[in-house]
Formats: sequence, structure tokens, C-alpha cells
Amino acid sequence: MPALRGRVARGQTWVAGLRTLKLTVAYDGTRFVGWQRQAEGVSIQGVLEDALARFEGAPVGVHGAGRTDAGVHALGQVASVELTAAHDTATLVRALNAQLPEDVRVLRIDEVPAAFHARFTARSKTYRYQIRNAPIADPFQRAYEWHIPEPLDLAAMRLAAEALVGEHDFSAFQSVGTEMSSTVRTVTRAELVDREDGRIAFEVAGNGFLRHMVRAMAGTLVEVGRGRRRPETLPELLAARRRADAGATAPPQGLFLVSVEYD
Amino acid sequence: MPALRGRVARGQTWVAGLRTLKLTVAYDGTRFVGWQRQAEGVSIQGVLEDALARFEGAPVGVHGAGRTDAGVHALGQVASVELTAAHDTATLVRALNAQLPEDVRVLRIDEVPAAFHARFTARSKTYRYQIRNAPIADPFQRAYEWHIPEPLDLAAMRLAAEALVGEHDFSAFQSVGTEMSSTVRTVTRAELVDREDGRIAFEVAGNGFLRHMVRAMAGTLVEVGRGRRRPETLPELLAARRRADAGATAPPQGLFLVSVEYD
Repeated sequence: MPALRGRVARGQTWVAGLRTLKLTVAYDGTRFVGWQRQAEGVSIQGVLEDALARFEGAPVGVHGAGRTDAGVHALGQVASVELTAAHDTATLVRALNAQLPEDVRVLRIDEVPAAFHARFTARSKTYRYQIRNAPIADPFQRAYEWHIPEPLDLAAMRLAAEALVGEHDFSAFQSVGTEMSSTVRTVTRAELVDREDGRIAFEVAGNGFLRHMVRAMAGTLVEVGRGRRRPETLPELLAARRRADAGATAPPQGLFLVSVEYD
Repeated sequence: MPALRGRVARGQTWVAGLRTLKLTVAYDGTRFVGWQRQAEGVSIQGVLEDALARFEGAPVGVHGAGRTDAGVHALGQVASVELTAAHDTATLVRALNAQLPEDVRVLRIDEVPAAFHARFTARSKTYRYQIRNAPIADPFQRAYEWHIPEPLDLAAMRLAAEALVGEHDFSAFQSVGTEMSSTVRTVTRAELVDREDGRIAFEVAGNGFLRHMVRAMAGTLVEVGRGRRRPETLPELLAARRRADAGATAPPQGLFLVSVEYD
């Protein structure tokens, strides 16, 4: 570990040498309580903050673009952090990865303007929900996909997915018990990608997502694929804004935060 | 579980209704002590025998084509078993998978002549050793590949791999302490497949493999790739037949038994 180069008092006006950094992070969420630090259990935010604090020699706060739940993965989560350590970003990437557990990797670090905030300045996020629609589950992918043995009607699922695109009140897909000032979001893309060996990916991008929104969408699409719900009913489902009308929340292990887009 | 349909005394001449079945099995070897049942720990053979015994209502012996080590995976291990249960093979696949842990999946079951034995009648086996040659490890593949951050010389590794093809005494690649009646084997294919994102696969097929042979080959090829060993030295390495001359045994998690071929 490189020696500390400097240290400033946090929470004060004088922050000479303080840099804002954008971290792009991949993680296997299987063993974590989720992104966010909690009283119990290991969080991705927690291991990142701990690794950065060892490097910085002082407590460090890490802000993530999306608060992924327990068991949810990320290919390109973005986090912002303010650091005094003067090392170049490539050295920081190596030093952090040497400290971090193997299931969390910092892919890159970029210096960004001080106004950058991973969550508040994000323009859009892209998620992927992975399904394996084949008689037999893949033993190597059991922590990364939802196995559904019965054949799904992909054409019907595609129709249903199309209805999700646009600016809507997504209350029907929001976890019960969550309170948000607004439940209106814009979904810019909602596609079903049919890959080899029965692997289906539901890819969705938008300017923001309510709690469990992608998993509730995936659960609803699977009900459509199973023939238990008609794709034409999606607009009324959205309009009714009742969570109980939508499908069950799909299990967490199929979900990946793919990327976060900024201006 | 379907009810038992019949039962015969094993080890006796009268074995009416006894069928020989060929099981094709995939498993994530991460948490297992290896294929073979041992006094301590969980083995793939063990969980298969236990699941079959519950189905058959009597102890069942399962013979595997290759005895994969702890942490080594299989995409297409083959096992043979003699069973009285009269159910069709598709039902057997479903019933077994319902009993087995999620990291072991029976992919298919075929009825085969009584002379079939997964190990003794195998004509050849194909293994794959997966390497990730990129600065940063893939957090989702850490149990399925060997991460090597320094750039490898693939052209040199290819040259070295070619020298392994043919009938040779492979003592140089055999684990110390193992005793085999013959250490001569024929390798029919030894190729380096260069995939996207720095993923390299060493694929090797042959009529038989000594203990740790593929991993010792992979370890040796990586030394060539790192420039610590010249590819032209492979023939003398084989000729000298000294394990100490070859490279270190590559870690188990990169190795997959891909398939087993029969006449």
C-alpha cells in the first residue's frame, strides 16, 4: 500500500487537494445484504468504504448510483467518492482491488468535476434480468438467473414489455411499504433478448427505478409468458397503480445493474 | 417419488430387470471434495449414489468416467449405473434432479448395453482449462477460471501446446506419488482458444489422462506464456519424464471435464 500523501479535515470549508472520483464497480451480490451499509451483514458499500478508508487514512463516504438489494449483482455500478490521496487513478484501481474481497472489483476510476454525484447526477440506468427457460437448470448459473422449466411464450412477453416503455406512474411495480415523492418514471427501453440455450434477458433502461420495480416487471412478464396474464392487460395494470395487480417480485439472483449513464 | 417397481439381489447371477444406464452430468465442483466418494466431505459420486439409492430403494454404485479433483467442474461427466427401477429415462432425469443439490444436474440418461462402463469403455475425454488474462479478475468467474493479470504470449503458448499432441509418455505431467501401470497416453488435440475479454481456453482431448495432467500442462503453458520457458523445450521436457521439470499444477477452479466419448 502506498503511503498516505496528505489529509484534510472533512466537513470543513478548506478541502485543498480533495478530488471527486467516479468508480465503476462490478460485484457478485450473492453473499451481500445489498449495496447499502446496514447494521447487520456485509454490504458492497461497506467493503468499498472500508477499503478506501484504509487507503485514505480517514473515514470515506461512498455514494452509489443504485441501491441494489441482497443477491442482486452489478456489471457497472457507479459510485462517487471524495478523496485526498493524490495517486493516479490506475494505481488506485490496483490498490483497491488488492484490498477488496474477490466478489467485488473496481473496473475503473475516473476523475470527475466536484459537482458529480453518482446518484443525483445519473441520467439513466440499465438493468438486465436473466431467465433460463429450459427443462434443466444450469448449475454454473444458479446464482445469476431465474430458472423456469415450463416453456415461456416469448412473443407475448415481448408485447407486454413494449407496454412498459414511456413515462408512466409505475406504482403497480413498486414494493409495498415504500414511500417516494413521485412514482412517475420514464422507461426508455424494455426488451426481451433471446439468447442460446434458453437464456432470456429482459433488458430495461430508464431515468429512474422504484424499489423492486425491475423484479416486479420481470415477475409480471413471466406470468404473461406462462399464459396466466394477457399482454394486452399491461396498460390497465399500469393505470390501476395497485401493486397487488402485478406479478410476484422475481427472485433477486437474476438481476444485474448493467450500467449507469451520465451527461 | 415414484414407488419402487421391483428389486433384485445384487451380486447374484439372477438380475432380471437390471438395466445399465449412462448418465451425463454437469456440476459446479467448487464445494465438493471431488468426484470420488471419500471418508470426509461431500463428493459428486456420493450425492448421485445417495439420490439413486433413494429412488431404487437399495444401495447403488455409480462409476464415473473421470475422477475430477476438488474444485474441478464438469459440463459432461459420464457415469454408468445399474438400476432395476423401470421408469423411463426422462422421468428418471426429473426425479434425480429433484433429489440432487442445485450444483449437480443430470443432463440426460440413456439406456446402454450391459457391457457399457463409463470408465473402462471410454474412448476419449475432452477437458478445458479456463484462464482470464486481463488486468482485473471477473468477479462472476472467480470459481471458474485462473486469473493471470500479466499479458501472456499466446503465440508461444500455441507452439508449446502443439508439442503435446501425439502418443507420449506423460510422466512429466503426472502428479508425484501416483502409480500407474503405464504413463503413455495419446493426446489428439491440444489447442488454445482465444475468446473475448482476455478469456483463454486450453482445450485438450485424448484417450486418457494421468492425475493432474491437464492442470500441469496448463501450468506449464502459462510459464511459456509468461516468457519463463521457451516453447521449443516442450519435447525435451516430455522426453526427460521428470515432474519437477514441468510447470506448477494450475489451480483446480479453471478445469472442466467437457465431454467423454464412446464408440
